[in-house]
Amino acid sequence: MMTDKQRAIALNDALANNDSNALSRLTEDMNTPDLADFIAETVLPGEELIMLNALPLPRRAEVFGYLPLMLQQELAPTLPLAELVELITHMPSDERADLFNELEEGLRQLLFQRLAWKEREDIRRLASYEEGSAGAIMSSEYVWINQGITVGEALTVIRRTAPDKETIYQVYVLDEAHRLAGVVSLRELIVAASNVLVDNLMAKDVITATVDEEQREVVRLIARYDFLALPIVDHQQKLVGIVTYDDAMDVAEAETTEDIHKGATISKLDASFGEATPMALYRSRVHWLVILVFANIFTGAGIAYFEDTIAAHIALLFFMPLLVASAGNAGSQSATLMVRGLATGDVTGRDWGRLLGKEFFVAMALGLTMALAVMFVGYFRAGAEIALVVAITMVLVVMLGSLIGMGLPILLNKLRFDPATASTPLITTIADVSGVVMYFSIASAMLGF
Amino acid sequence: MMTDKQRAIALNDALANNDSNALSRLTEDMNTPDLADFIAETVLPGEELIMLNALPLPRRAEVFGYLPLMLQQELAPTLPLAELVELITHMPSDERADLFNELEEGLRQLLFQRLAWKEREDIRRLASYEEGSAGAIMSSEYVWINQGITVGEALTVIRRTAPDKETIYQVYVLDEAHRLAGVVSLRELIVAASNVLVDNLMAKDVITATVDEEQREVVRLIARYDFLALPIVDHQQKLVGIVTYDDAMDVAEAETTEDIHKGATISKLDASFGEATPMALYRSRVHWLVILVFANIFTGAGIAYFEDTIAAHIALLFFMPLLVASAGNAGSQSATLMVRGLATGDVTGRDWGRLLGKEFFVAMALGLTMALAVMFVGYFRAGAEIALVVAITMVLVVMLGSLIGMGLPILLNKLRFDPATASTPLITTIADVSGVVMYFSIASAMLGF
Repeated sequence: MMTDKQRAIALNDALANNDSNALSRLTEDMNTPDLADFIAETVLPGEELIMLNALPLPRRAEVFGYLPLMLQQELAPTLPLAELVELITHMPSDERADLFNELEEGLRQLLFQRLAWKEREDIRRLASYEEGSAGAIMSSEYVWINQGITVGEALTVIRRTAPDKETIYQVYVLDEAHRLAGVVSLRELIVAASNVLVDNLMAKDVITATVDEEQREVVRLIARYDFLALPIVDHQQKLVGIVTYDDAMDVAEAETTEDIHKGATISKLDASFGEATPMALYRSRVHWLVILVFANIFTGAGIAYFEDTIAAHIALLFFMPLLVASAGNAGSQSATLMVRGLATGDVTGRDWGRLLGKEFFVAMALGLTMALAVMFVGYFRAGAEIALVVAITMVLVVMLGSLIGMGLPILLNKLRFDPATASTPLITTIADVSGVVMYFSIASAMLGF
Repeated sequence: MMTDKQRAIALNDALANNDSNALSRLTEDMNTPDLADFIAETVLPGEELIMLNALPLPRRAEVFGYLPLMLQQELAPTLPLAELVELITHMPSDERADLFNELEEGLRQLLFQRLAWKEREDIRRLASYEEGSAGAIMSSEYVWINQGITVGEALTVIRRTAPDKETIYQVYVLDEAHRLAGVVSLRELIVAASNVLVDNLMAKDVITATVDEEQREVVRLIARYDFLALPIVDHQQKLVGIVTYDDAMDVAEAETTEDIHKGATISKLDASFGEATPMALYRSRVHWLVILVFANIFTGAGIAYFEDTIAAHIALLFFMPLLVASAGNAGSQSATLMVRGLATGDVTGRDWGRLLGKEFFVAMALGLTMALAVMFVGYFRAGAEIALVVAITMVLVVMLGSLIGMGLPILLNKLRFDPATASTPLITTIADVSGVVMYFSIASAMLGF
């Protein structure tokens, strides 16, 4: 067996010599994602087509579908039209629709004229659904059978139609109006006697999603019920497609990335971070940064308000960053726990009383520990009086920060806003303002100014 | 058809009347996760067993496996031993091993004596793998066949063994030493003629993981290759189990939660956030909070160093929170983008030059925008001189914060530490210290003190 490195060298040699026999032999055993990565990352620009053309047709279309969309978009116009038509005909329906959305109008028209009616209709339908909807990621290549047939007849249909299908492990039983009457797994069909009616085996209370359902919800259903595929229906309850678990995993990863970014006030990026243009990155980040600049002016105003106290006890300033940062850090921990808990369904808005109660004690313990940590520094740096002010403030701001961090996502959730809007920078800013005000209020009360 | 609410009411009625006929009728069409949720959340404590006992045996074991582990652990000792043995015999192997790990030693011994040899060995093996390893989540219920048999013979084996298997859609071909010789999908078997040799159909270059591989890597392989299941082998290359895509999805969610928590300096929680005790939450949070308290003392020391500058221009204080917060916010955006990019494989450590170069321009544009935003406030609040100091500092601290935020995860990654250690609070703290020092250095240089 060859190592990956040996294979890469051999492939490059074969490419340099334009040796299509060697190319097809070397690529035969490679996994599709590995081969697509090799073409996208290692093959020299301009030589991708030599590599693709060495593959037999169904495989070529499959590998092409795994290439990054940008590369597909770049390669498509350089192919002879007849070859492009063949390639597109054999691509998985969901990836084909994605590519079509990205092609130039002129090329799209040309292709449409050459494609068979079936593919044309398919592309038109899949491309029409809104981004982020179930319709936009579904595949139209599912196995379906009519009601009233036997297991043996069903297996014959499956065998005949299998090559074009995304999965054959879920078989959908449809009535005359193409509405979903039930679903049966290939596992059940294989085990059953061939003269049994499928209607007696199938599950009738089928969980489905409509074409305009959010992808996030589709992922949730697939993960919750361990589905291999979720059937997608239109508003007349007609089956129009399926979303498979592997596409759901990809969507789940993208959605999580969006959530994580949101937690750091980064708005949605159209491309991935690695591929995004500087302008796109700027636009996704500037919005909240400017809002937070204005929010932080309040912290400045808080300091200005206590100017006299500060001037009288300038040593107080030494501890200010420490106190506001601690409030912010504790608050961002709480907000992160709560926002993620709500996103995974681990906790719900209804648990708020129990969670805030628990947080009260956790935050108090954290505050006391941190107060202890600063007490000694405070005593040696600024004397007993200021040390006491700092310690008391620490307990209070950590508790305040934590309770805001936990409470704000709950509140946003109750008001039906996205709890992830309670991002770390926002919580930190709120903790900053209240930390400053608390600190100097306590100081001026205790130190008498 | 009944709504969920009607069904819940009917189920509660049936429970109250101890009507097991009604219970089994009502639960027949329910999905396993829904039924498990109903038992865990709606059924009164103490009545869970009535509900479970109304289910036929294989179903009962399946539903039991879906209950939260804590509830399983609570219910197991209250069951008559004979019933518990039956339940455990029929549970999916991976969930059975998890439950076993949690039972009391005495009960475990009793059960071991009563279980059949096959289940006993299975539990012993699965329970022996370390937490977080592939072995700890794998299932031993895979379909395997010998080398050299035909498709027809293989289908006979599959039909016979299907009821006990986690999935039958991937069939593993083993040699006489139980080593993996190849893999074939049920799809390929169904489509092929029954007299074809499986050896001619199977893929030979099978991607596997060893039992002590990290679960994170198992998830990555399953997601990358769109596998239904990944075969797990021991160190002699013998097949010992499979990890299915649905278990991989659960692991992926848990791993992501761990990453997100780490990004807010929360260490690993053993229970979920919703179920964690106050003590566990305290312990997961206190560690970094105290470290950051000490780190923030440097910011205080920075302020103390510039005490004279501050005393001379107390208006400078007004803008301090704004400047350090802006540096921290921009830095936490960059760190979040980079850490998540590395975690998903969107970017790699090798891209560092390109990414830092891009970040330089993005950060400059962000800094200029934010400088513009504070200029006016600065001018009206504190005059032209200070406004200029603030604007210049803003550009520089935003750039510094951003470059640290992006650079630190890259550096950690190069040094083979977890890049997620570059958490938002850590980046914010570094930005605080450097922001304070920069601000007052520029101020004392420009305002001459």
